[in-house]
Amino acid sequence: MESETEAAIFEATNRALCEHGYAGLTMQRIAAESSMTSAAIHYHFDTKEELLVSFLEYLIERFEAKIACEAADPRTRLEEFLDIVFDPAQSKADGFPVALMELKAQAPYHDRFRDRFLDLDATIREVVAEAVADGVDAGHFEETDPHAIARLVTTTINGIHVRTVALGERPVETRQVLEATLEAHLGWRPDSEVMA
Amino acid sequence: MESETEAAIFEATNRALCEHGYAGLTMQRIAAESSMTSAAIHYHFDTKEELLVSFLEYLIERFEAKIACEAADPRTRLEEFLDIVFDPAQSKADGFPVALMELKAQAPYHDRFRDRFLDLDATIREVVAEAVADGVDAGHFEETDPHAIARLVTTTINGIHVRTVALGERPVETRQVLEATLEAHLGWRPDSEVMA
Repeated sequence: MESETEAAIFEATNRALCEHGYAGLTMQRIAAESSMTSAAIHYHFDTKEELLVSFLEYLIERFEAKIACEAADPRTRLEEFLDIVFDPAQSKADGFPVALMELKAQAPYHDRFRDRFLDLDATIREVVAEAVADGVDAGHFEETDPHAIARLVTTTINGIHVRTVALGERPVETRQVLEATLEAHLGWRPDSEVMA
Repeated sequence: MESETEAAIFEATNRALCEHGYAGLTMQRIAAESSMTSAAIHYHFDTKEELLVSFLEYLIERFEAKIACEAADPRTRLEEFLDIVFDPAQSKADGFPVALMELKAQAPYHDRFRDRFLDLDATIREVVAEAVADGVDAGHFEETDPHAIARLVTTTINGIHVRTVALGERPVETRQVLEATLEAHLGWRPDSEVMA
């Protein structure tokens, strides 16, 4: 768990990353977005890469805590998962999708970034596959391969993420298409939250 | 249509972008990957952004020429489209997916990049929607919304692209999931090419 100071550094990193991009990101610019000096930031993180690996872990922990839903009914779990992934507040206000995409584009050059993304991916796929498997067992969903469905859902979410960032697209319509696809595979359609 | 010199500059840009990333890309490094001086490159393109916008147009034209398939049978058109998108040679040898992802991550800061990606997206969706609509009309596919299917296919492809780059994933398995999804929606399954 990060300290308050580290959380403040991560918030500043997010703002600096969204404003200047990975290409323009420096310790000085991160400091400028916080109330700290760059020397103080260097005290916590030796290098920009150290800082960004920790920043990525911080984003991923936040997200994993959100999707660790404990509802007993697997349909509720899938619906809550979709509500979190498609949360319009998240994709607009805090700029995290832009920061995350910057780091994804860097993954071919930084194994430590890639490893974190692989962990996140495994977690997301597990959450979906478990909910699907439980739903099949309970007779709520038609017989299907939970891992194939998890791959499909995760890949679609990856696609929605890049479309939000690169095309400026609102994900509402795509959510509907994903729901229609779940219906085609599971014989069950999630209850959509009303989207702004 | 670009000149031979410009094509050589674009090939060098691709190599420099894959090696150094957007953050480390300079006219000098592009020159170092070619047989030209950076002055010669500046003669063709005033700024790095000018060069990258033209580079992006070059990538997109290459891709659009590939997917402009003229087969009369809409099933053949969809199959050929998938074969091009999932071409394993393309995703490994030439590094274009990495270069493209770098530029997608820059789209929030560069409207000229975003506009090109929006054009490309419209083209891909049109190719898919037309093939689906023609297939429904001809009685090959079940009744469905061609634009919803096009959105689903395109978003999945966007997701596969980011997974290839960020996670180093091979797209074979995801192609199978996409094909199962097309089968669920269209009542027809594409004939997969054997993948390496």
